Amino acid sequence: MQQLPITYDDVLAASYRIDEAVRRTPVLTSAELNDALDARIHFKCENLQRVGAFKLRGAYNAIAALTPQERAAGVIAYSSGNHAQAVAMAATLQGARSTIVMPHDAPPIKRAATERYGARVVEYDRYREDRIEIARGIAEREGGVTIPPYDHPDVIAGQGTVAKELIEQVGTLDVVIAPLGGGGLLSGTAVAAAALCPEAQVLGVEPEAGDDGRRSLAAGQIVRIDTPQTIADGAQTQFLGQYTFPILRRYVAEILTVPDASLVQAMRWFFETLKVVVEPTGALAAAAVRDGLVDVRGKRVGVIVSGGNVDLARYGRLLSG
Amino acid sequence: MQQLPITYDDVLAASYRIDEAVRRTPVLTSAELNDALDARIHFKCENLQRVGAFKLRGAYNAIAALTPQERAAGVIAYSSGNHAQAVAMAATLQGARSTIVMPHDAPPIKRAATERYGARVVEYDRYREDRIEIARGIAEREGGVTIPPYDHPDVIAGQGTVAKELIEQVGTLDVVIAPLGGGGLLSGTAVAAAALCPEAQVLGVEPEAGDDGRRSLAAGQIVRIDTPQTIADGAQTQFLGQYTFPILRRYVAEILTVPDASLVQAMRWFFETLKVVVEPTGALAAAAVRDGLVDVRGKRVGVIVSGGNVDLARYGRLLSG
Repeated sequence: MQQLPITYDDVLAASYRIDEAVRRTPVLTSAELNDALDARIHFKCENLQRVGAFKLRGAYNAIAALTPQERAAGVIAYSSGNHAQAVAMAATLQGARSTIVMPHDAPPIKRAATERYGARVVEYDRYREDRIEIARGIAEREGGVTIPPYDHPDVIAGQGTVAKELIEQVGTLDVVIAPLGGGGLLSGTAVAAAALCPEAQVLGVEPEAGDDGRRSLAAGQIVRIDTPQTIADGAQTQFLGQYTFPILRRYVAEILTVPDASLVQAMRWFFETLKVVVEPTGALAAAAVRDGLVDVRGKRVGVIVSGGNVDLARYGRLLSG
Repeated sequence: MQQLPITYDDVLAASYRIDEAVRRTPVLTSAELNDALDARIHFKCENLQRVGAFKLRGAYNAIAALTPQERAAGVIAYSSGNHAQAVAMAATLQGARSTIVMPHDAPPIKRAATERYGARVVEYDRYREDRIEIARGIAEREGGVTIPPYDHPDVIAGQGTVAKELIEQVGTLDVVIAPLGGGGLLSGTAVAAAALCPEAQVLGVEPEAGDDGRRSLAAGQIVRIDTPQTIADGAQTQFLGQYTFPILRRYVAEILTVPDASLVQAMRWFFETLKVVVEPTGALAAAAVRDGLVDVRGKRVGVIVSGGNVDLARYGRLLSG
């Protein structure tokens, strides 16, 4: 059998490294939902994580794994989303400089948050410039290691601590469900679940408009798509990673897809029932359960809620629609 | 010294009785806020409690304290707010019938929720009928014990479990701050804090428009006011209770007040920073801290977030204003 990019030992090592910085996020349940589905559904609320998303775990672990010399040279990331803020905070907490390459038309609130966490933001024109080139240029001129958003063993190992923590908090699970974009969270989840609950079925959920993950698993190779049109901005990835794909292929039972309308309904349910703010991408796994796509009857189910970063105006527009 | 209506032993007894039914709610923190205030602020999130508010604790304890005969006769409550849903759920969980007397123009969503939790709803015309008379009539015709929203020793003891749990979760506190309406939550908090952290300063926070609590403590007797105009619908009480007042008088250092605009700002902060939904009344204590009304510098502070029941349309209107 092909050797995978990480093992559970890497997740365990990550959990020690990041312990000082990340929050042990709560697990919420709804008696009403459990009764309705005849199941025990555990929502692991990474929307209540620092920086509002699980991304801090992978970023912190990747930076902690650098040599002191590398860390002293600073880190670089390109992202307009949760990864940007996660790298900014993870670097600051570890005394490293960070540079985030962000499109010039990114929401001002995201740029402000990234700077508040201590990063330098470098803008680029996303219609005329290539962010990977820009990041490479910065690395060549100034030094510094680029921390990728998902396709890196240390990032995957860090994200795997979500499922590890969840299983420690609630015990053995029969099904574990996570959102799928580039596969960092889902592959980490799969490695942790395979070690701690080997019988558990691991499922990923993508937006209907961006089902490259499902197609990739079906084809047995990474399928590339155009940037999908979906409100799940954290899952607008065009392809799985070279590190994440083999892990998903080994461990993931199935990839499900949900339409944007189901994400909105799930977000509203989180507001009304669990009283927590969930961003569209964060609602992917819950939406699949609520839509009846998963056989949960009589089962203990872990649902990963990945993030809660959605600005108030957009939230209001989405939920009132 | 006058004997108070409850002691810490009653809170302890309540915590055993309600343990099977209530959620141990999470405590959230914000590193950014802590840095800004040079303090350690712990938000006890009773908005994440079942039924969306701490009220389940007091209602459940009061019903659990009934004799089997009393419980078999059913319970009655008059409320259009969180107490209605709390009594409905607490009764259903303990196999008791419940009747909730509710104004005929209460929001349909609240009536529906109360019925969903298993209660019979009896409507009355709040301009022409008296809800206390109606409840008494039901009790006389059908039997059943009325569970008051705050002025009852068993209700106070149940609400005291919030602070007990918080101190168990985070350790000794220098300051404990809770919202103040009729005083059930604040008096229970005060009794628990006096036993577990006797040095802690206990503060209550009222809406500026309804400062009867502050005036009552200043006057040394219960001051009655007209129903105050405030968005904090859970604190629109007109007077403290005969059981809550002596406890507040003994233990509470000060009552602070905040304007509605500060509640809205605090609700927005909870949305953006902690990713949780907080109703106006639930934001009272946090608003006082954010407005700089409390000397928190260098201190360990407990802030009770009492509830998260606000419908989406109202939430959107308040926060976009």
